[in-house]
Amino acid sequence: MTLHGWITHLRSSGKVAFAVIRDGTGIAQAVFVKTALPAEVWQRFASLTLETSVMVRGEVRADARAPGGFEISVADLEIIGPSPLDYPIQPKEHGIDFLLDHRHFWLRSNRQRAIFLVRNEIEQAIHDFFYERGFLRIDTPILTAAIGERSGLFETDYFEEGKAYLAQTGQLYGEAAAAAFGKIYTFGPTFRAEKSKTRRHLTEFWMIEPEVAWYDSAANMRLQEDFVSYLVRRALDRCADSLKVLERDVTKLEAVKPPFVRLDYSEAVEIVRQKGSVTTWGEDLGAEDEALIVADYDKPVFVMNYPKQAKAFYMKENPADPRTVLCDDCLAPEGYGEIIGGSQREDDYDRLVRRIKEERLPVDAYDWYLDLRRYGTFVHSGFGLGLERTVAWICGLQHIREAIAFPRMMHRLKP
Amino acid sequence: MTLHGWITHLRSSGKVAFAVIRDGTGIAQAVFVKTALPAEVWQRFASLTLETSVMVRGEVRADARAPGGFEISVADLEIIGPSPLDYPIQPKEHGIDFLLDHRHFWLRSNRQRAIFLVRNEIEQAIHDFFYERGFLRIDTPILTAAIGERSGLFETDYFEEGKAYLAQTGQLYGEAAAAAFGKIYTFGPTFRAEKSKTRRHLTEFWMIEPEVAWYDSAANMRLQEDFVSYLVRRALDRCADSLKVLERDVTKLEAVKPPFVRLDYSEAVEIVRQKGSVTTWGEDLGAEDEALIVADYDKPVFVMNYPKQAKAFYMKENPADPRTVLCDDCLAPEGYGEIIGGSQREDDYDRLVRRIKEERLPVDAYDWYLDLRRYGTFVHSGFGLGLERTVAWICGLQHIREAIAFPRMMHRLKP
Repeated sequence: MTLHGWITHLRSSGKVAFAVIRDGTGIAQAVFVKTALPAEVWQRFASLTLETSVMVRGEVRADARAPGGFEISVADLEIIGPSPLDYPIQPKEHGIDFLLDHRHFWLRSNRQRAIFLVRNEIEQAIHDFFYERGFLRIDTPILTAAIGERSGLFETDYFEEGKAYLAQTGQLYGEAAAAAFGKIYTFGPTFRAEKSKTRRHLTEFWMIEPEVAWYDSAANMRLQEDFVSYLVRRALDRCADSLKVLERDVTKLEAVKPPFVRLDYSEAVEIVRQKGSVTTWGEDLGAEDEALIVADYDKPVFVMNYPKQAKAFYMKENPADPRTVLCDDCLAPEGYGEIIGGSQREDDYDRLVRRIKEERLPVDAYDWYLDLRRYGTFVHSGFGLGLERTVAWICGLQHIREAIAFPRMMHRLKP
Repeated sequence: MTLHGWITHLRSSGKVAFAVIRDGTGIAQAVFVKTALPAEVWQRFASLTLETSVMVRGEVRADARAPGGFEISVADLEIIGPSPLDYPIQPKEHGIDFLLDHRHFWLRSNRQRAIFLVRNEIEQAIHDFFYERGFLRIDTPILTAAIGERSGLFETDYFEEGKAYLAQTGQLYGEAAAAAFGKIYTFGPTFRAEKSKTRRHLTEFWMIEPEVAWYDSAANMRLQEDFVSYLVRRALDRCADSLKVLERDVTKLEAVKPPFVRLDYSEAVEIVRQKGSVTTWGEDLGAEDEALIVADYDKPVFVMNYPKQAKAFYMKENPADPRTVLCDDCLAPEGYGEIIGGSQREDDYDRLVRRIKEERLPVDAYDWYLDLRRYGTFVHSGFGLGLERTVAWICGLQHIREAIAFPRMMHRLKP
């Protein structure tokens, strides 16, 4: 067979030499036997360096001891593209900034490949989950005139229309689509121009936002736990090798099954205060609070019905306690924190207008959104799942920046 | 059963009344018999208007003559959300601007629903095609410092990093990923700040960009014809009802099978000149030229190997004719024009630097991209398929703006 790929490892005894070749789909070991090869081929081996691209021809046989499980007895070797000795990523420790500066090369490592195999599986599982359940995928616009939350916006000039803002969510459009198609989901990039430097924030990240007509908050949470469990199951079933490379403790993932834990916000505040948090009723829960809450459970935890002032204007007032809204955050176990924010949407026109005004948002910009309540309003709910946070959790990554191919953070716009 | 939905049609004989109800997944006819109903339910029927949201309860039976194929004998009716009589979209002709201003309602029509069922099927088919073939999906950044083509960029401030530009393509990142993972594809929104008002242009559109290590231009075209044929087949197999609603002549689509027609650019220029075009060798082909070319064929047509000056800097010089590059445009039949642009990529470092300079692009911004040629360069090819153009073609739409839920054009940023 003929194999094209890149050299990742070299060693030679003087008579027999080995090259590990990465072709993108995996690795294979090529064996060069001096006495069995034309002299020029043997000499070519000597000129190989890390990440030289090559073509090798030879016989393949399975060999469990060889890296990649295959060995090629080389009959011919061609050098396609040499690789100077200053190839940036060497088999040693590199700092994170250096690795991120060379992300185009860092992606070639075993560990990064494992992450992107898992990400790919999760993305396909997301599409399969919704496709099988009759949801329509709707691609909502990135360039918007009106948007959900107003701080931390990237803006750009838009011809004679004035400014356009990069969408922080597709939800408002998703609600319009749910009224047309019943069950929909979005899958696209979202943007936050926030000066945040935590290990859970990116300025550009991918979000999946289902929206369902006639679902109340309880049905919304059932959909969330089915969805998250499905994604974890797919990763376990189809990415065992990658999770092994990542040294992921999969027993933690095996526990992720419905029903998830359900805590009322007020209960959650009690729990974190008993554990020493100074958070008081009315405030949003921070990353540390979230870690305190999930510590007691081996499953994801829903924290439900937050105070109105801690959440976005579009969430429906809770009839049982009008200080709160019908919403949930889904917290991943093992301290990974919020992976989903969901809510039933305010379907009462007057209440929604009041909330928009309270938040000092421009009512005019929401005219079409308010239309959905003026004409045949409907109970509906939805949620947003952060893709990189989900990948980071399932892969067991310490920082979200490894969960996307080319991360964008406050100080990083390249490569 | 209980059904939630919106009223799309009403009629009454005084003793028996009918309401067609749309629930997003389809429509059903509800039958109200005055003598069989409590008086208050019969009175509620009288207050129904177009797009009122309702709950009906009753017995369902299949009835081939009823709209939607189902009829519900109503036992109870509740009005959830009334709909004032000025509901904007009425059963009459509306101008296109009016419809686009009310896109959130327009989406509720039968025709729009059919389009988005087809779009959903095509999107899922795209993911299935690549997943089954071992391609990794890679989500490339929207916010970029360096990009493929430099005119028509949307720009935004990016913290202390200066300006960021909205990606016109994910290809350059896709090439880096192909070197890491072998076979990849991207699926995301792309942006063109062009003052274009044709029926084939949007300022924001979705593009699918596969990139494959070790594929030459010929292999790239074989992938394209397999891919496009697969998408058309899926739409034919699974969207027959929607294509019928759209009055699509499916016999035209049945003809879309590999191999597609292959014409050299020079041949294509000959053909259009014989048909009266004034295009001369060296110029790009316009929409009218494309229509002249495909008129002779019932399949998509590849036009190959354009002159260098008509195409982007990253395309590989054609060894057989260095005035040209190894590329192809794939033109859909029936005058729908270019749906794919593809090429083998320039893998020679020096030639690539020369081309970047010739195009007066900033070499520095491409440092990481050039790295892919400095260290273990590799033969590779890829292409970009425009999603909305493909949907417009398969659905038989006159204008691309109907192929996306909330189109963005030069004068349109809302809703």
